[in-house]
Amino acid sequence: MSTSASSDDREEGLSLQPKFDASGLLTCVATDAATGELLMVAHMNEEALRRTIDSGEAWYFSRSRQALWRKGETSGHIQRVVEMRTDCDQDAIWIRVEQTGAACHTGRQSCFYRKVEPAEGGAKLTFVDAGRLVDPKAVYGKD
Amino acid sequence: MSTSASSDDREEGLSLQPKFDASGLLTCVATDAATGELLMVAHMNEEALRRTIDSGEAWYFSRSRQALWRKGETSGHIQRVVEMRTDCDQDAIWIRVEQTGAACHTGRQSCFYRKVEPAEGGAKLTFVDAGRLVDPKAVYGKD
Repeated sequence: MSTSASSDDREEGLSLQPKFDASGLLTCVATDAATGELLMVAHMNEEALRRTIDSGEAWYFSRSRQALWRKGETSGHIQRVVEMRTDCDQDAIWIRVEQTGAACHTGRQSCFYRKVEPAEGGAKLTFVDAGRLVDPKAVYGKD
Repeated sequence: MSTSASSDDREEGLSLQPKFDASGLLTCVATDAATGELLMVAHMNEEALRRTIDSGEAWYFSRSRQALWRKGETSGHIQRVVEMRTDCDQDAIWIRVEQTGAACHTGRQSCFYRKVEPAEGGAKLTFVDAGRLVDPKAVYGKD
């Protein structure tokens, strides 16, 4: 895959020309292929992107651990890619996936289990769709 | 809003404690509130997040222009926020919006108008849902 391209080529062309940020990363959005639900947002470096395309399963790059990460490697909660898309300037990837188990490391289906609402002094959060599918301690063997 | 917090607080608490990256940004995913379609992925700095919460309309921070940006300021294609959520570690925001006009600056409903598929030598793109709602030259007055 090429990583340098003009804006027109990148936006209207049919070759994959990912625009990695200063840290070498793209943003990746994963949604549930069946329900459309937003499951998680994570990052891919070039290697993670290539492995995802080649294997048909999601690989990411963990910014906190600075390491390539096969989704589900520890938990078994893999993501099978049903469709992958890129956006206009090719700095983001969208994957529609078949999620095994829970997408979120907290044991919830989705990472987006809290609503943000305006409140005195700024904002407040409220749990929504926050039930756990699995016990994270059982899956990851730690708190 | 507080920006420093323990992992537990951030993941299980009910106060907004956004975790901005080294550039002071969060990732923001916008989906269509009616259809669930993924419209765009962009970034918010603290000011953009606050303005979005306060006004109920999407504000972003443009990395390329290094400027605060009210979505639709030039095009009129504003996004009214129906619901906002944050994710487990509070480094991403999801907004479900009522999109006026086209979300993408290319004039398309969504920025994700190309599918990525494995191909000889890496990957190829295919247009999908790529019709333009509006002529970007008419909206932005330039190519």
